[in-house]
Amino acid sequence: FLSSILNTSAAFAIPSSSKLKPWTANTTPTSHDKHHSSKSQLYLANPNQPAYCEKCGTKTIIRQPPNDERERACCPDPSCGFVSYQNPKIVVGAICTTRDNQKVLLCKRAIEPCAGKWGYPQGFLELNETTRQGAARETLEEAGASFDPAKAKLMAVYNLAGYQVQTIYFVELEDEVVDAGMESSEVGFYKWKDVPWEDLAFPTVEWALLHAKDHVIPLISNDDADDSNIIVQERTKYVDEDGQWQVKEG
Amino acid sequence: FLSSILNTSAAFAIPSSSKLKPWTANTTPTSHDKHHSSKSQLYLANPNQPAYCEKCGTKTIIRQPPNDERERACCPDPSCGFVSYQNPKIVVGAICTTRDNQKVLLCKRAIEPCAGKWGYPQGFLELNETTRQGAARETLEEAGASFDPAKAKLMAVYNLAGYQVQTIYFVELEDEVVDAGMESSEVGFYKWKDVPWEDLAFPTVEWALLHAKDHVIPLISNDDADDSNIIVQERTKYVDEDGQWQVKEG
Repeated sequence: FLSSILNTSAAFAIPSSSKLKPWTANTTPTSHDKHHSSKSQLYLANPNQPAYCEKCGTKTIIRQPPNDERERACCPDPSCGFVSYQNPKIVVGAICTTRDNQKVLLCKRAIEPCAGKWGYPQGFLELNETTRQGAARETLEEAGASFDPAKAKLMAVYNLAGYQVQTIYFVELEDEVVDAGMESSEVGFYKWKDVPWEDLAFPTVEWALLHAKDHVIPLISNDDADDSNIIVQERTKYVDEDGQWQVKEG
Repeated sequence: FLSSILNTSAAFAIPSSSKLKPWTANTTPTSHDKHHSSKSQLYLANPNQPAYCEKCGTKTIIRQPPNDERERACCPDPSCGFVSYQNPKIVVGAICTTRDNQKVLLCKRAIEPCAGKWGYPQGFLELNETTRQGAARETLEEAGASFDPAKAKLMAVYNLAGYQVQTIYFVELEDEVVDAGMESSEVGFYKWKDVPWEDLAFPTVEWALLHAKDHVIPLISNDDADDSNIIVQERTKYVDEDGQWQVKEG
């Protein structure tokens, strides 16, 4: 939902690209991104390191704790000593189809990043929910559509630039009730041929939609197939040594 | 690694259970766990909410930001206004076998939680690495064993109590070189019949080992099978309305 999405700082947002293949972004990586591709700058360059200790309010210092291999924001107050660990966050999403799988639920984003572009319901996983519950919550919040989390099938795991891991689910909706939430300016079911492929918010949106259309739906439509056996697509988007966005399988 | 594992507060650690099935823990949930099973206490009860703003050091207040559905630790200083989002963390792990799949790499834990119990290499995903790179790093740190992250196969996704998502990989090692890291008191390759099933650190360790032995290895050993098509096991461990640990598929 809104605040959760806004939690993505600009530096970590996945750049949109109108020319999706060969998966190099049409934006130049920022100096921050470049720092991150340089091993020596890897940890110091993290702009999200807390400046103050969240436990006691003391100004932190960046140092390598004993028995650690990385520099962290540490509280220098010996009576506190809190170490702040910064870890990748989890994004959950759902590709939702009509019962006949002929149409897919899409939302036009009303918020940045990529306002005005199209996607499927997704957002940051919250505490006290599972990945599939989170995917169902985002679908309800952004598109007003409901599904039983137990019926969702894991279909993709995407690693994004070492800052985000996405788990994407596939689900056939029971009905076609939708209602645009405040993060969406438009929601609806679209035939696969009508998906705005040139106007998607993120490369991952295209990855997941194509994987659903080309692999998941043919599998679950085959009565002889074991539909519990969906191939989970794994992809990674990263910044290479030249500072360019690249994608690899796995 | 050490500091990362210690980042798990006791309340969020997964209780070990000598009687692993039917997956109810032999420990009584703490009052904290009970709060978490009560919807009304869900967010206030989070003991990890920052007491001070990490951006400016002001004491935070817990409130629901505009357009948000949850209470967050917010900076009341209008010139800052930082909102602290707390999200589940990602743990990565690796089930490593010998080339003939007859033996599996296990580590005896030298650190809490569950020191003295057995597991496979695992730990928190760091920034700037992918899930499979993290699994390889943990394997090197804890067991001195190396593998190419590109050759690892995703085999399990576990959701733990709404605080942790684990992605577990399967990999056949090229050789049997091991070297106990500082988090392990013992490491070695064990025949499947010699795995200390009654002395494993966490229920997830048993889940992943059994899934590897009973499903992944038979599949990759079958020359006719498409071994890219490993069924990714999904399981969730949660606290039910009676405050008891439960497990469900998916």
